[in-house]
Amino acid sequence: MQRKDISIQYTFDLTTIYPDNQSFTADFDKVSRLKEDLKQAKDSFTINSDNFYAFLKNQDEYSKLLEKLYTYCHLACDVEPENQELQSLMAKVMAFANQGNVELNFIDLKIIEASETINGYLSEDRFASYRYAIKEIIKFKEHLLSEENEQLIAQFDAISSLSSKVFDSIRFDYEPVEINGKKEFLNAATLTRFLKNKDRNVRKQAYHNFFQEYRKFENTFATTLAGIMKKDAIYAKIRKFDSPLGASVYHDDVPEDLFFKILEMANVKYRPLFHQYNSLKKELLDLDELCNYDLNIPLVNTSDYKVKVDDAFEIIKTALAPLGKDYLKIIEKSKDERWIDFYPHEKKRAGAYSGGSYLTKPFILMNYVDDYNSLSTLIHELGHSVHSYLSNSNQEYINSSYRIFVAEVASTVNETLLINHMIANAKTPEQKAYFIYEQLENCVGLLFRQPMYGEFEYLLHQKAAADEPLSSKTITELYAKLSQEYFGEEVKLDGLTGHSCYYIPHFYYNFYVYKYTLGMTVALAIVKRILDGDKGQVASYLEFLKSGGSMSPVDLLKIAHVDPLDDGIYNDAFSYFENLLQQFKETMHEKK
Amino acid sequence: MQRKDISIQYTFDLTTIYPDNQSFTADFDKVSRLKEDLKQAKDSFTINSDNFYAFLKNQDEYSKLLEKLYTYCHLACDVEPENQELQSLMAKVMAFANQGNVELNFIDLKIIEASETINGYLSEDRFASYRYAIKEIIKFKEHLLSEENEQLIAQFDAISSLSSKVFDSIRFDYEPVEINGKKEFLNAATLTRFLKNKDRNVRKQAYHNFFQEYRKFENTFATTLAGIMKKDAIYAKIRKFDSPLGASVYHDDVPEDLFFKILEMANVKYRPLFHQYNSLKKELLDLDELCNYDLNIPLVNTSDYKVKVDDAFEIIKTALAPLGKDYLKIIEKSKDERWIDFYPHEKKRAGAYSGGSYLTKPFILMNYVDDYNSLSTLIHELGHSVHSYLSNSNQEYINSSYRIFVAEVASTVNETLLINHMIANAKTPEQKAYFIYEQLENCVGLLFRQPMYGEFEYLLHQKAAADEPLSSKTITELYAKLSQEYFGEEVKLDGLTGHSCYYIPHFYYNFYVYKYTLGMTVALAIVKRILDGDKGQVASYLEFLKSGGSMSPVDLLKIAHVDPLDDGIYNDAFSYFENLLQQFKETMHEKK
Repeated sequence: MQRKDISIQYTFDLTTIYPDNQSFTADFDKVSRLKEDLKQAKDSFTINSDNFYAFLKNQDEYSKLLEKLYTYCHLACDVEPENQELQSLMAKVMAFANQGNVELNFIDLKIIEASETINGYLSEDRFASYRYAIKEIIKFKEHLLSEENEQLIAQFDAISSLSSKVFDSIRFDYEPVEINGKKEFLNAATLTRFLKNKDRNVRKQAYHNFFQEYRKFENTFATTLAGIMKKDAIYAKIRKFDSPLGASVYHDDVPEDLFFKILEMANVKYRPLFHQYNSLKKELLDLDELCNYDLNIPLVNTSDYKVKVDDAFEIIKTALAPLGKDYLKIIEKSKDERWIDFYPHEKKRAGAYSGGSYLTKPFILMNYVDDYNSLSTLIHELGHSVHSYLSNSNQEYINSSYRIFVAEVASTVNETLLINHMIANAKTPEQKAYFIYEQLENCVGLLFRQPMYGEFEYLLHQKAAADEPLSSKTITELYAKLSQEYFGEEVKLDGLTGHSCYYIPHFYYNFYVYKYTLGMTVALAIVKRILDGDKGQVASYLEFLKSGGSMSPVDLLKIAHVDPLDDGIYNDAFSYFENLLQQFKETMHEKK
Repeated sequence: MQRKDISIQYTFDLTTIYPDNQSFTADFDKVSRLKEDLKQAKDSFTINSDNFYAFLKNQDEYSKLLEKLYTYCHLACDVEPENQELQSLMAKVMAFANQGNVELNFIDLKIIEASETINGYLSEDRFASYRYAIKEIIKFKEHLLSEENEQLIAQFDAISSLSSKVFDSIRFDYEPVEINGKKEFLNAATLTRFLKNKDRNVRKQAYHNFFQEYRKFENTFATTLAGIMKKDAIYAKIRKFDSPLGASVYHDDVPEDLFFKILEMANVKYRPLFHQYNSLKKELLDLDELCNYDLNIPLVNTSDYKVKVDDAFEIIKTALAPLGKDYLKIIEKSKDERWIDFYPHEKKRAGAYSGGSYLTKPFILMNYVDDYNSLSTLIHELGHSVHSYLSNSNQEYINSSYRIFVAEVASTVNETLLINHMIANAKTPEQKAYFIYEQLENCVGLLFRQPMYGEFEYLLHQKAAADEPLSSKTITELYAKLSQEYFGEEVKLDGLTGHSCYYIPHFYYNFYVYKYTLGMTVALAIVKRILDGDKGQVASYLEFLKSGGSMSPVDLLKIAHVDPLDDGIYNDAFSYFENLLQQFKETMHEKK
């Protein structure tokens, strides 16, 4: 499938960002001038409250425009990576941004230097919306180095991001999967479909054709993965954090214990539940040997569940009805205004994400293939986009972007509302079993798999910090070992399992994946209350979304009436899985 | 061809470095202890002359062992990149070396700090061999930063080498070339052979199958190439050099003008000679259209020139006879002691190099395919290895390694002696024409092509320094444009020409290739004198080789009676080409 074969209404409308080259250039010129203005003000912007206020406004404008330029290039390149003009624009924006980082890295330092005076300015009303952000900067005092050293470190920014850049630049043309002599297109989106095929040969072929590319380039991936771990270790050390994990939780404003608690709950206390589920799979599938590429075979017949994009929107609106009319209006807007790029095609970036900026729509990139998983991914990304939309509409720019940590709550609440709707409204035991099964799979991904990833990255970080060499052998053997412990004894691992870690982008994000687990846990608690008819919960949840990033994640979640530090939510989440598993057994029995 | 199918006498003997794992481990343990000893001496090694002497001896021992460990891993990995145990060893050694760089980066700083006292120590006889190296360190004073900043920069070493690491890690399985329905193995070594095929379809296929891989991964290569340019710019700026070129010539101890002089001579003044040659090619080949993948079609029938490894050695010994018996004994040693890994096979690193260390043989990696080019490459690499052998045997460790700048003289003298021998001893006009043709091609590579590469990297560096974005579009268009100017109007460029720059490793070495041109130029002058019967020239040339890196390149070349700053040698070299071209026209005429 080529991009040109896709009907325009199913592509995102990037002309709403820039209708033509001139408008892009105009913004680029404007942001260049703004940067000069900011640089000019270096020695004067903290000396009085008027200067400071004007500077902050200019800085907002600079960041807003730069994000707009970046959003345009980034989205356009992801659907047309072969377009070298776009790649040039992207490179130009990135080079400008990198240079800006270097040239403007005086700002935080100056604010910290003048922190006492500035704390005085903040009591003025006009600074109200800046208070949280400025206090966050001042709090960073103990991790800031001298101006000279900050300048030195900033020089390296352009090359320290190289691991991620190289990882992102690699695109494979996978060998197609042959089904009945016909060659079928393989990429990350279709892989999921092939792994659901009843024919073991198709599953095995898809798994092999996919991951053999990662094995072919294993030394390259090991180099970039070792590079990012090394980079995180270097920056943590330089910035006086105990470890890359310490740096990650600091930025999220949560205690480090949270990470270990999640790992302990998921990887130790509740892991037997996952093994029980795998044993049940083996029994229901009646296989002599259960390989990891067999785990996606539908336990319930799902081949008849197809949902086109337009129907998906109707289902989504019904499922999200408990969130109220205002929420649904935004969902409609997303379709009417073409926020979303729906379908997979050749060269397009794999996966799905919500991405935009304060001055653009909150766009969504999808690889929609008409199945339940696509529907669920769509409602997930819509969760992010509505969160952004509400935050952008209700917050000043400075407070509009929220931390990843709370972001996943918005997406997972949507996913959970969807599946609960599907289970509750199932018309037959088959359908009910199917949706329970889908939710079990979803829970596996979020409650069990992500903490395994978390353990893997934690161990890689430890090795990098200890200067242990990270060859592809070391990396893939570790991943294979953790995978075996994770899946349990019932599952036989394919020889390429160790290399499948090279496919996962999140390891380049310094402790990201465990946040999905927390998001799921919190979301289960919120949805439970909403569906139990707690009217106040809807209002407080929407208030949470509208609050964007105006305070710490813990404070934000408290607006939604959830305490992320409470042990109870984990017990609730895993009990939910346990109950679902029990319900599944019963439904499968009933179905017979 | 698999490695196991190759007779052992044609592989290099790495057991002479480490016969078993224990000996590797023993050296690794020893070098670890030495590093600790060096660290311990941080505050005491400059306080008196005895301490300083003992420290330098320990440091030599540390470096020698580390280089030995690295040499082993590096050579072993290059022939067996799929061997993950070797990759692990390599990663372990690299991690250790990186850590060592960080931990021991106090040394130069302390020496500079105590430079006045140390200059006093150097007058003692026992420091005689250390004088040049220590003075080089002290000279670096103006480019050294504060200890704190040096520590900070050293942290980044492990990630600033990432561009090169990623580039080195990429290995392609090229699509085979189909000749008469038979699929033939394509890699860098066999590409050269295919490009000589009389059938345009074979040439075109080989060129395309080869470079299409580079186009497929163009964004990755653009990322690493932009990364290395950025890295060089950052380091030049931090270290207070005017530019990466300024840093490069500083390290080589030559004036920056040398670079521009070579570019002016080759790319402006004498380039019309190369265009004349291309026009002659078109005429002789009688082609309507001369593409760049046609330029390697032999103008003289060469298919009958085959030379097996054993015969190659006999020819080499005869050709190098003017250098005397002692030189020839070392050539014999290289074969008897298995310094050389001759044949290409699957997975093996492409190309050829001489690589070893003070405590190992000066090994050679070849991809020998029985043709004249292989013979010529072999004698080239032997030039390096004999240079190393003589330097290691005659110099203390501290003065044994010589700069790349003078290294190319040793290899090119050998190549030139070989070809002159072949031309002089040709038995027929055909044979004579053939060897003249080979030398013309060789001169094209060294006198014309490398300065074009030099211009390309100079322009890339300029763009990176100016923060201009370096997308694959920018890079490949620039390379295509320079290539067109280089080849001249008579040559039509293939659409993949721009992407062929991604194949060249030298752009990762911060101004390397122009040194080949100087090496050739100097070598032509030396060989001329030797063949003119100047007996003193042989002795002074051997003295130059034995001098290793004991003084500046200019001083070293003066030992060989050549002044690299003299304009005359360039005029001589290009006139040689002009004469050769004339001689070729005449011989081709005679042949008819």
